Amino acid sequence: MKMMIIGLGLIGGSMAMALSGTPDLEITTVTRNPVSRADALRMGIVKNAWPTPDLAPIEDQDLVVLCLPPDACLEFVKQEAMRLKPGAILTDVCGVKKPLYAAVNALPPHDFIYLGGHPMAGKERGSFANAFGELYRGSHYILTPDASVPQSAIDTMTRLIHAMGCADIIFTTPVEHDERIGYTSQLMHVMALALCDQHLLFDSFGFEGNSFRGATRVAALDPDLWCELFMANKETLADLTDELIRNLSVYRDLLLAGDREKLLAQLKVSSDRKKEFDRLMGIEHSKTTLYK
Amino acid sequence: MKMMIIGLGLIGGSMAMALSGTPDLEITTVTRNPVSRADALRMGIVKNAWPTPDLAPIEDQDLVVLCLPPDACLEFVKQEAMRLKPGAILTDVCGVKKPLYAAVNALPPHDFIYLGGHPMAGKERGSFANAFGELYRGSHYILTPDASVPQSAIDTMTRLIHAMGCADIIFTTPVEHDERIGYTSQLMHVMALALCDQHLLFDSFGFEGNSFRGATRVAALDPDLWCELFMANKETLADLTDELIRNLSVYRDLLLAGDREKLLAQLKVSSDRKKEFDRLMGIEHSKTTLYK
Repeated sequence: MKMMIIGLGLIGGSMAMALSGTPDLEITTVTRNPVSRADALRMGIVKNAWPTPDLAPIEDQDLVVLCLPPDACLEFVKQEAMRLKPGAILTDVCGVKKPLYAAVNALPPHDFIYLGGHPMAGKERGSFANAFGELYRGSHYILTPDASVPQSAIDTMTRLIHAMGCADIIFTTPVEHDERIGYTSQLMHVMALALCDQHLLFDSFGFEGNSFRGATRVAALDPDLWCELFMANKETLADLTDELIRNLSVYRDLLLAGDREKLLAQLKVSSDRKKEFDRLMGIEHSKTTLYK
Repeated sequence: MKMMIIGLGLIGGSMAMALSGTPDLEITTVTRNPVSRADALRMGIVKNAWPTPDLAPIEDQDLVVLCLPPDACLEFVKQEAMRLKPGAILTDVCGVKKPLYAAVNALPPHDFIYLGGHPMAGKERGSFANAFGELYRGSHYILTPDASVPQSAIDTMTRLIHAMGCADIIFTTPVEHDERIGYTSQLMHVMALALCDQHLLFDSFGFEGNSFRGATRVAALDPDLWCELFMANKETLADLTDELIRNLSVYRDLLLAGDREKLLAQLKVSSDRKKEFDRLMGIEHSKTTLYK
C-alpha cells in the first residue's frame, strides 16, 4: 500500500515514525521544509519526499493523510484532491471536521473516498524536530465516516491506527465531533488563555500547584494554528464559552451573596457531576494523583 | 521537642508519617476517628493519641499543628489556644490565612507564637486512609510570619518542613497569601466545577484528552471543606472569578465577531504571557509532556 503523508510536522512526522517498518506499507511525504525532508529520508522513515503536492505523485497513492493546519487542508482539497485515483482514501488529522467535509462535498463528482480523522494527541510545541514515534500511544483516534465510506476503507484505517499504538477508535459524525471537541479541547484552551490573562499571573511564582499547572499548561499554544481551529468552529465555541461564563457567574454570585448553604449545595451538584463522570470513566483516583 | 498534630486526616496523617523517626521529635495527635487513632499508634507514627483537644495535654507542647478545616481551626483558637505554654508555636495548614490571624489577634494577651502555614500539597480524596509520607515531596510550603514571630520559631518550622521533603519555603503575608492562592488554587477549583456543569459533560467519553483531564481533575472535591475555604476568601475569589468572566468574554466576543486578525492578536497576547511565565519558571517543555 502506498501512503503519502502531506505535512511532516509533529503529527505527520510522528505518524511516519510510528508506522515505519509496517509490512507492505510504502510511506512517502510532502513537506516544504528541506531539513525535514533530508532528515526523514536519512532516518529511513519515508521512501521519498517532495517539497509541494503538485510535484508529488498523488495519483499513485492508495492513502493520502493530510497532516496540515485546517486552511492548508482545505487548499489541498480544492487544488489537488481530484488527482486521487478511484478507490484511494483521503484522510486528515484536523481538530475541526465540518469545513473539510463541506469542501469535499463541493468538489465535482469523484471516486476517491474521504474519511475524516482526528488523533487525540499532540504537544504544546509542534514541528518535525519534536516528533516521536510514541506520540499516539494510548490515545483516542476519532473517525467520522459518512455512509459513502466502504467498510474496506474503515478496515484499512483501523489497521494503521492500531499500528500507531492508539488505545481505541471513536466513531462519530463531523457535527458531533466539532461540538464535543469544542468542549473537551477548544474550550480548555480558551479557558487556559483567559486564566493567563489574569493580572496576578506574574505574581504567582511559588504559589502554583498542580491544579494551576494542569489548567494553564496548554495556554503556551501556537497562535496561528489555534486561530484557524477556533475560526473553523467559532459559533460552537462561542456558545460553549458563553455557557462557561454563565456557570462561573453562578459561583461569583453565590460568593458575593455570601450564602453558605446555597454555595454548599452548588458545590455538591458540581462535584457530584465530576465524581459520577470519573466513576463512569472507570477512573480510580489513585494515591499517587497529587494536586500539589 | 513535643509536637502535637490536631486532626489526623490526609494532611495531618501524611505529616506524621513524613516526620516519624525525626531525632528528638515526639509526635502525638488528636483525632476524633478511633480507627485512625488505633492505626496511627499501631504504625508507630505517633506516641499517643486523644479523641478531642480538651482531653489532650496542650499545655505540654512545644509545637501544635492544626490540620483541620478552617472553621475547626477557628474553634480551636477560641477554645484551646490560651492553654499553650509561653514560647510554644501554634501553626496550621489552612488554605486561607486571614481569618485565623484575626481570631488569634482577638485573643487576650498571650505568650504563645502563632505562625500561619500552608503546604501546597493534597489530593482529591482526604482522610487518614489516603495519607502517605511522600505527600509533601517537592511541594512549596508557604509561611506567613508577622513581625512578632522570633527567628527561632521560623528556624524550627524550616527544619521540620525540610524534613517533610518540601522543595522550598515561600514567605509572604496573610493578605498576599489569600489573594495569590485565590488565583492559583481556589479559582482553578471554581473553574473546574464550572466546566463540569457544562451540558456536554456526560456526552464526552472518548473525546477527552490531557487538557480536559488537567483542567477538570480537581472538581471531584470535598464540598464541605471547599465551602469553608471559599467562604473564608469570598470577596477575593468573587473578584478573581469576575476577572475570569471578563477575560472569557473577550474571547467569546471575538469568536462571535468572527474577526480573524483580532482573534489572532489576542491569542498571541495570551499565549505569549504563558510562554513568558514558563520561561521565568525555568520550565522546559519536554518532549514527553503530552496533551493527549
